Amino acid sequence: MRRTVISPLAITTLAALVLSPVALAQKPPLVSQADIIKQSVPSDWRRLDPENTLVMEINGQQVILELAPRFAPQHAANIRTLAREGYYTGSAIVRVQDNYVTQWADPADEEKEKDKDKVKPLGTALANLPAEFSIPFKGLPLTRFTDPDGWAPVSGFVDGMPVAANPAKNQAWLAHCYGMVGAARSGKPDSSNGTSLYAINGQAPRALDLNITVVGRVVKGMDVLSSLPRGPGAMGFYDKPEHYVPITRARVLADIPAAEQPAIEIMRTDTATWRKLVEASRHAIGGWAVRSALHSNICNRTVPTRPIASPAAS
Amino acid sequence: MRRTVISPLAITTLAALVLSPVALAQKPPLVSQADIIKQSVPSDWRRLDPENTLVMEINGQQVILELAPRFAPQHAANIRTLAREGYYTGSAIVRVQDNYVTQWADPADEEKEKDKDKVKPLGTALANLPAEFSIPFKGLPLTRFTDPDGWAPVSGFVDGMPVAANPAKNQAWLAHCYGMVGAARSGKPDSSNGTSLYAINGQAPRALDLNITVVGRVVKGMDVLSSLPRGPGAMGFYDKPEHYVPITRARVLADIPAAEQPAIEIMRTDTATWRKLVEASRHAIGGWAVRSALHSNICNRTVPTRPIASPAAS
Repeated sequence: MRRTVISPLAITTLAALVLSPVALAQKPPLVSQADIIKQSVPSDWRRLDPENTLVMEINGQQVILELAPRFAPQHAANIRTLAREGYYTGSAIVRVQDNYVTQWADPADEEKEKDKDKVKPLGTALANLPAEFSIPFKGLPLTRFTDPDGWAPVSGFVDGMPVAANPAKNQAWLAHCYGMVGAARSGKPDSSNGTSLYAINGQAPRALDLNITVVGRVVKGMDVLSSLPRGPGAMGFYDKPEHYVPITRARVLADIPAAEQPAIEIMRTDTATWRKLVEASRHAIGGWAVRSALHSNICNRTVPTRPIASPAAS
Repeated sequence: MRRTVISPLAITTLAALVLSPVALAQKPPLVSQADIIKQSVPSDWRRLDPENTLVMEINGQQVILELAPRFAPQHAANIRTLAREGYYTGSAIVRVQDNYVTQWADPADEEKEKDKDKVKPLGTALANLPAEFSIPFKGLPLTRFTDPDGWAPVSGFVDGMPVAANPAKNQAWLAHCYGMVGAARSGKPDSSNGTSLYAINGQAPRALDLNITVVGRVVKGMDVLSSLPRGPGAMGFYDKPEHYVPITRARVLADIPAAEQPAIEIMRTDTATWRKLVEASRHAIGGWAVRSALHSNICNRTVPTRPIASPAAS
């Protein structure tokens, strides 16, 4: 007998039997997340933003990173420049710390005894950027989650990304959830410039929020980054150059010929369909689960993607 | 320049500068988590329980699972029997779903067209067990976390494991955090028997809580389980037998010769030192981080382990 643990998407009307009167008063949706996705309309989906998407190739597989120019405009611009001028092509994964981060950089810049001649030139990219830890909350088109987040007074999604906020301080920031990408820095808060980036590969380390600039989210290929061997060095660094996993190519989506572009689209997070999906995730629907959590957390909700027939058409 | 993302343990007095008056009134500790661990005393640590620890070998590496007999006594006993009678030795990882679970089972029991002669016999282990989803909260020696959990009214640690509870229902349960291990089941809640187990390899899927029996925690070797290739099949199942990753050996710790026993000990979670560590994790200490989260979550706190000089001595 195949025993399993149900897929998160499948956990979502037998469960109505175990709901409390309070929950029943909330009229739980009787439609599963999978069915909500099936019933979605074309306007529930969007294409990747050509100027704000980085397509990397690692171990022969694509890793697609969507930048967040609303939250980190200067980092997004610098990363775009670095990608266009070939900085990332030939850089490598230099660190994989279990249940924390997968990080990439110019390996020559990582060596303790570094040969300055081998360090990649920045080209027209800037060496110094301001810290972009938060933006004003006021006016932000946040699709809000109603359950308490614990780490922040307010949470939800903006532009397909998990966001936490403190309205009293008029402050909003990208949350360190699984798959989110940040710009590594040294001790100085404004020492990141996008040359070294990291993706969260485990439980959301939300204590990092507001301590470092988050630049976007891996929308495809996080499995590639999370299944790499953990580094044996301190903090998960690969301690031998032969362990480095090369980034064989990195391009801005806009620069990729239409026929080669990744044929995926992403669910919008400013729609009634997304709100229904989030609500459905609070309830056990479908028969496997016997208890509804009646809770949803921004870091437990992955924005759906799906293949599209013709990536070039829009 | 080596830019990085600080290790979680290192994030913990410069931060006092940004604390609110309320936080300052709480007298934040000025000692980092690393220093609290250094200053710990022998009684802050414990050995692995020989009768409740399973030592597996996968890809030549050890994966150590501590069972939770207080929470799932019948599953713990059945798993012990299965291990002692050789059930797990020769079983395999059959599923790795990214940001969800790594699952192992008897591969022959997974085949759609299965040859009953090849399915491993259960021996003296029981085929049917009750669901062990929760235990009474009253009297539980919970080292409580004071920050809101979101998923449950009360949370904390018991016996080194993350626990959520609802005192109003006199109910407590093991929380699905990273590295926690559960017993896979089919549609029937009481269909698990320990023959197929899974470990959480990503963001805590807390919606599974109270829906399945949790049997323990991986205390060493989670990096082995989390870095395996993701399965290409539905729900991350390996769809070709040649993808299965064999469990070459699985033994109960008590049955392993003293000289071969893993030389690690674990921090107790019923001590003042553990409580200090949890409190320290709420604060930015050490200079890298500029902002204290002033929040801690059971799924973000990993119980420290350390090598011991002589595993057999006690």
